[in-house]
Formats: sequence, C-alpha cells, structure tokens
Amino acid sequence: METLGYFAGILTTVAFIPQVMQIYKTKSAKDVSLAMFLIFTSGVMLWLVYGIKTNAFPVIIANAVTLLLSLVILFFKYKYRKML
Amino acid sequence: METLGYFAGILTTVAFIPQVMQIYKTKSAKDVSLAMFLIFTSGVMLWLVYGIKTNAFPVIIANAVTLLLSLVILFFKYKYRKML
Repeated sequence: METLGYFAGILTTVAFIPQVMQIYKTKSAKDVSLAMFLIFTSGVMLWLVYGIKTNAFPVIIANAVTLLLSLVILFFKYKYRKML
Repeated sequence: METLGYFAGILTTVAFIPQVMQIYKTKSAKDVSLAMFLIFTSGVMLWLVYGIKTNAFPVIIANAVTLLLSLVILFFKYKYRKML
C-alpha cells in the first residue's frame, strides 16, 4: 500500500515537468491560471511544513520538488506576461 | 498539526477552480499542458485508491474533488483543442 502512495506521489509531482517544458518552449503561459498557481504554491508550501513537522520524508521530498516546479511556472507566468 | 494538513489539502484542491474558470471564460487551453493533466489525473486517481484502501477520509475527499476538477480541465482541453 505504501508503494501505491509513493507511485501516486511521483505522478502528481512529475506531472508539472511537461507544463514547465511546454511554457519554456512556447514562451506563452496566458492560458495557465495565475490564481491557480498562487494558491497551489501556497498549499504545497504548507504540505512541506507539514512534512517537516511530522518527519514524513516522502511528503517532504514530493512537495519540495513540486514547490520548485510550481515556482518555475510562476516565474514563467511573470516572465512571459506580455503574451497575456 | 492535523489542521495544517487539512488547510494544505484545501489549498492544493481549490487551486484548480480558477484554472477551470479561466479556461471556461477564455475558451482557450492551449498553454495548459495535456501531458501535465494526463499524468496529474492518473496520480490523483491513485491517491484516491490509496485513500480508500487506507480509510483516510481527508485523502479521499481532497482527491475526489481534485479528480473532478482535473477531469473538467482535460475535457476543456479536448473541447477547445481547435485553439491549439
């Protein structure tokens, strides 16, 4: 059952990689919701704090990676804002 | 500490609502990565199975809602595919 959790965590984390790559290639992020990634990034930060406080290593690693990827998406959203 | 987890879960779940609303309003989803939402939806489905098998109610409810929202985004991605 733990393996299922790890596998689920890997999928919901790596999912953000193609989004980062697509924005990087197209230099366009207008359809990507800023509000979504602001709220999502805040949530992932809280998950990270939760993981640290409860010493849950898989929660820490998954959310650290997701936080990095969602921050890159927010940065791209800002960088390519002229495409709005 | 449990409250922190609930709050984190609420944020990473409701985050998808503005994305759904934005695509619905603009009728455009070309910058939203199909690969991201295919992988993400698969991961959320696994989280849901994990929650059911481990009787973790917060995991079930958060992922049921997220699954619904990410399926709507996938449906929109298909519906507005001509905007690619």
